Amino acid sequence: MTVGEELYKLVAELYPICRSITGDGVRRTLEIVDREVGGGLEVSEVPTGTPVLDWTVPREWNVHDAWVADPAGRKVIDFQASNLHLVSYSAPVRATVSLAELSEHLFTLPDQPDWVPYRTAYYAERWGFCASQRLVDSLPDGDYEVCVDATLADGHLTYGEHVVPGETDEEVLVSCHVCHPSLANDNLSGIAVASRLARLLGERRPRYSYRFLFIPGTIGSITWLARNEDRLGRIRHGLVLSGLGDPGGFTWKRSRRGDTEIDRAVTHVLGRSDRPHQLVDFSPYGYDERQYCSPGFDLPVGRLSRTPFATYPEYHTSADDLDFVGPAQLTDSLEVCQEVVEVLEGNRTYLNLSPKGEPQLGRRGLYGQIGGRSDAEERQMAMLWVLNQSDGTHSLLDVAERSGVPFALLADVAADLEAAGLLAEAP
Amino acid sequence: MTVGEELYKLVAELYPICRSITGDGVRRTLEIVDREVGGGLEVSEVPTGTPVLDWTVPREWNVHDAWVADPAGRKVIDFQASNLHLVSYSAPVRATVSLAELSEHLFTLPDQPDWVPYRTAYYAERWGFCASQRLVDSLPDGDYEVCVDATLADGHLTYGEHVVPGETDEEVLVSCHVCHPSLANDNLSGIAVASRLARLLGERRPRYSYRFLFIPGTIGSITWLARNEDRLGRIRHGLVLSGLGDPGGFTWKRSRRGDTEIDRAVTHVLGRSDRPHQLVDFSPYGYDERQYCSPGFDLPVGRLSRTPFATYPEYHTSADDLDFVGPAQLTDSLEVCQEVVEVLEGNRTYLNLSPKGEPQLGRRGLYGQIGGRSDAEERQMAMLWVLNQSDGTHSLLDVAERSGVPFALLADVAADLEAAGLLAEAP
Amino acid sequence: MTVGEELYKLVAELYPICRSITGDGVRRTLEIVDREVGGGLEVSEVPTGTPVLDWTVPREWNVHDAWVADPAGRKVIDFQASNLHLVSYSAPVRATVSLAELSEHLFTLPDQPDWVPYRTAYYAERWGFCASQRLVDSLPDGDYEVCVDATLADGHLTYGEHVVPGETDEEVLVSCHVCHPSLANDNLSGIAVASRLARLLGERRPRYSYRFLFIPGTIGSITWLARNEDRLGRIRHGLVLSGLGDPGGFTWKRSRRGDTEIDRAVTHVLGRSDRPHQLVDFSPYGYDERQYCSPGFDLPVGRLSRTPFATYPEYHTSADDLDFVGPAQLTDSLEVCQEVVEVLEGNRTYLNLSPKGEPQLGRRGLYGQIGGRSDAEERQMAMLWVLNQSDGTHSLLDVAERSGVPFALLADVAADLEAAGLLAEAP
Repeated sequence: MTVGEELYKLVAELYPICRSITGDGVRRTLEIVDREVGGGLEVSEVPTGTPVLDWTVPREWNVHDAWVADPAGRKVIDFQASNLHLVSYSAPVRATVSLAELSEHLFTLPDQPDWVPYRTAYYAERWGFCASQRLVDSLPDGDYEVCVDATLADGHLTYGEHVVPGETDEEVLVSCHVCHPSLANDNLSGIAVASRLARLLGERRPRYSYRFLFIPGTIGSITWLARNEDRLGRIRHGLVLSGLGDPGGFTWKRSRRGDTEIDRAVTHVLGRSDRPHQLVDFSPYGYDERQYCSPGFDLPVGRLSRTPFATYPEYHTSADDLDFVGPAQLTDSLEVCQEVVEVLEGNRTYLNLSPKGEPQLGRRGLYGQIGGRSDAEERQMAMLWVLNQSDGTHSLLDVAERSGVPFALLADVAADLEAAGLLAEAP
Repeated sequence: MTVGEELYKLVAELYPICRSITGDGVRRTLEIVDREVGGGLEVSEVPTGTPVLDWTVPREWNVHDAWVADPAGRKVIDFQASNLHLVSYSAPVRATVSLAELSEHLFTLPDQPDWVPYRTAYYAERWGFCASQRLVDSLPDGDYEVCVDATLADGHLTYGEHVVPGETDEEVLVSCHVCHPSLANDNLSGIAVASRLARLLGERRPRYSYRFLFIPGTIGSITWLARNEDRLGRIRHGLVLSGLGDPGGFTWKRSRRGDTEIDRAVTHVLGRSDRPHQLVDFSPYGYDERQYCSPGFDLPVGRLSRTPFATYPEYHTSADDLDFVGPAQLTDSLEVCQEVVEVLEGNRTYLNLSPKGEPQLGRRGLYGQIGGRSDAEERQMAMLWVLNQSDGTHSLLDVAERSGVPFALLADVAADLEAAGLLAEAP
Repeated sequence: MTVGEELYKLVAELYPICRSITGDGVRRTLEIVDREVGGGLEVSEVPTGTPVLDWTVPREWNVHDAWVADPAGRKVIDFQASNLHLVSYSAPVRATVSLAELSEHLFTLPDQPDWVPYRTAYYAERWGFCASQRLVDSLPDGDYEVCVDATLADGHLTYGEHVVPGETDEEVLVSCHVCHPSLANDNLSGIAVASRLARLLGERRPRYSYRFLFIPGTIGSITWLARNEDRLGRIRHGLVLSGLGDPGGFTWKRSRRGDTEIDRAVTHVLGRSDRPHQLVDFSPYGYDERQYCSPGFDLPVGRLSRTPFATYPEYHTSADDLDFVGPAQLTDSLEVCQEVVEVLEGNRTYLNLSPKGEPQLGRRGLYGQIGGRSDAEERQMAMLWVLNQSDGTHSLLDVAERSGVPFALLADVAADLEAAGLLAEAP
């Protein structure tokens, strides 16, 4: 199997699980993530009622079954067929109701009559079902039996955390949400890409330590932040990963500060590639970057997605299914993450040790010959840029931005120049 | 009557008065302004010869009558018909002259043969008449009788000043010139809008004190500046109002500094509205912003106009008459001024009192419900922006600029957040 | 003769001389330059083997003759016909070789079959000839006699330096390379323009001292920098002049810092004129600006060219001949240099001595009259700009950039204002 096929297979494996912001679906998901990252995922269980920043850990929700039966006794809406049919965090109910009363608890998408919407009712004790408009239109008058066999009770909020230790304890935070049920792009794609990135980083000893969070949205990041406030100072860069499997171009949503190194690293990677992409400014709405970028933390964290949430019709519907995501997109998303990691890992500031005039590259075997290959010319230009800019105030990413030379090539020639004694890392 | 009709009526009342940089026309105009602002206009009379900065208050000019009679004795040019016929500050004369000699004292607009130009001869003792090209072309040879029955003598320079006291003695300066005779747009429109703005502000207790100046152009602002030098430090923001009745889009001419709060407030108001408008950089030519923005004062004062002076053919001609301005434009101009005032009044810097993560808006009744109105979504985004940016370094105008959310909405939700204990004004 | 004809005549006189980075061709060229600048050119001879920064002065190369004779004994490639035929710095050789062996030493331009390329083999002991593709295609099989009667031996590197003393010892550096053989645009045009500029500056006493360098490329600037390191602090502005005779628009390559006064002066001069031009950012490839802008020196030096090197087909070929350059272009290039010099010379920072309000220009005879010429209006605007901006923090070039008024006019009215006691140079 290719990497893409493996990532896709993981998305497919996670797809049927009924996740919400708490409950066994999250636990089952984290078991699979633990396997994928190569083991060592640390799972936290935080009790209901625990104060976390301005919030409180909610009751835990678990579903055993849920359905609506029509006057003839047939289950016309059935949680077993798709967990999207039940409004997330629906309160338990067992009742017989008229069609009119039932209708007040039904959610549809009139514009997409065959799709089922995804709805939640966190922090509001109510019940509801989601169905296609076509089904609802076909329901006859009469008495309907309704069953939500669920528990909404004190328990725990569950999240997973995986650290790849690096040379320093300066950290790169990678965060993805694990609270959505059968939605493939939002966010099984993010979970798959993050898991694989963690496993790949674990195969080497990176410069930074990498902390991967697999958490329920909003309340999960708030809980993690509340419990790790004293360690946030270690975070140098961060990415929220979500919506990485759809066929659209990439979107980088900048951090609150807007021009941090992670913003610049992603901008360089996307800008130098042929991948269609857009850069959007920070706004205080979206995924967990909202919490990381709240003014009391203001972490250098942005968000990498393909098509932005809420801008594609499949978003938060049954159409965000296994047909909506694909192996090629998952691979491409992983590669962008890897390229960004390489920029962060390699972004050092150097000093030209022969800064007066150009050093004579020729006698060091670093200069292209007559009739040299165009590759030689590119390397030579990259060397000249690194030498010219390395006065101790410009990082390699600065050089990449000014020169337009790909970061990877600059890092490569910097190693050659360092080996030739012409360059040293700035103190 | 609508507000626009009232403003237009005021322009019409002021139109026939013969104003210049000194004289009874200014006094008569200020009597009407005093009535319009609701009383309390302070009128200053500064004697001829008073040194004011690099200048000296000139002699006072008053006209009793002026005409040119043709060889048949008919008054072919008559000040009584329009005060534009007499060059402003013409020296007294009574003579019989040939057509050739007369021609040297006549000013026309060859490209607009039916219009009469507006000309002045300040600081140069000479006489002259303005007429239509068509009339001048029809004058037969012969002896012409010329009469300028005017006085140019020691007297006073007159200006009016009206203060609406605010919570602090920090001031907003609003300045308009009152020295042009029968020209409706330039600047009876400015006088009308400024007078009404003063009256409306007087009906409340604003945060800032507002100082309205009704002054002759150039020498008037120089005189006022000379006499108030020790109080200029109070001026926080300022607008010169002129040319606010014509049908063109708005023009904001930036202050010398270019990015002061008044520049940003007007830019936001115009930018968020559908009103056609342009922003132009400061230049040292124009109306009294030239004086306020001279390097020794460098006040944060810009100019609000509709079509810029000297760029419309009616400018400084008899065609800048009561047909050229209209109630709708005057109302719209007043509204822009009011919206700008609201930004200045409401522009405070807040501190998010729950800055770590987002505060839970839901339990405070501040969060939209399922199926909420789009208005609820807009308010919610506005709240998130205010909360996210309120770290004590961003004013609401900063938030408006970054978010694109209208200032008024931000100010509104900031009040809600303050009431909910989530926000406090930064110290 | 016009100036352009004189410049062109100089280019033509220099054209046949066989220059390289060392040797008698450079010496002969400098004799002519000495005559052109009006005498006083200081010629330096630096011995082979002298360490200069990271480099070493190479052996000196001189050619007596060089040719290739075909099997019939005819000289088919002949240095006497054009010095481009011999690869510069070819090692001496006298041999009989087969066509196949000869071919490994021949360089052509297959895409331009009638042109001869210009090639060098510095720092690599080898020999080679350049010829047209058409000629090479016509060579019959057989034995060829090859002769490079040249010396490559210890000697000297030669360069010329000419200083026009100014009021201060702050310097403007003007540098051009003198190491190319029969190439008219690259860089006889630069030599001609620089020589004439030096002569013209010598006819007055400028504010700055002007140092003109006539040096071999790369090794020449490196040698000069190595020998003058302690004097580099005097350099305030600098220009590398090259490629100033071709018919293309102008190109200013910015200094490494990008926004120095010379960058801004050239940008203003080109931007205010109708001359087609482009501004390009610094890159560490090109002519001697590479050395001046190395990080250990980082001098404020940019490069003025017309069409950039390597972007026109004639570049480094026999087609860069006397037909490729013209008197009109040379004149125009000289004029740009002169205009830039005038900006540097006149760029002072003034203080408005009457900074509160506008000073009354009228009573000082500085204000336009009724019916004044449009020239009067321009002068008046220029005066208002100078007065408004002269608060001790804006130079005339700042004023020119903000106002769009040509620098020369600002400098002119500043003199008037200074004479009127309204302006003084800031301390």
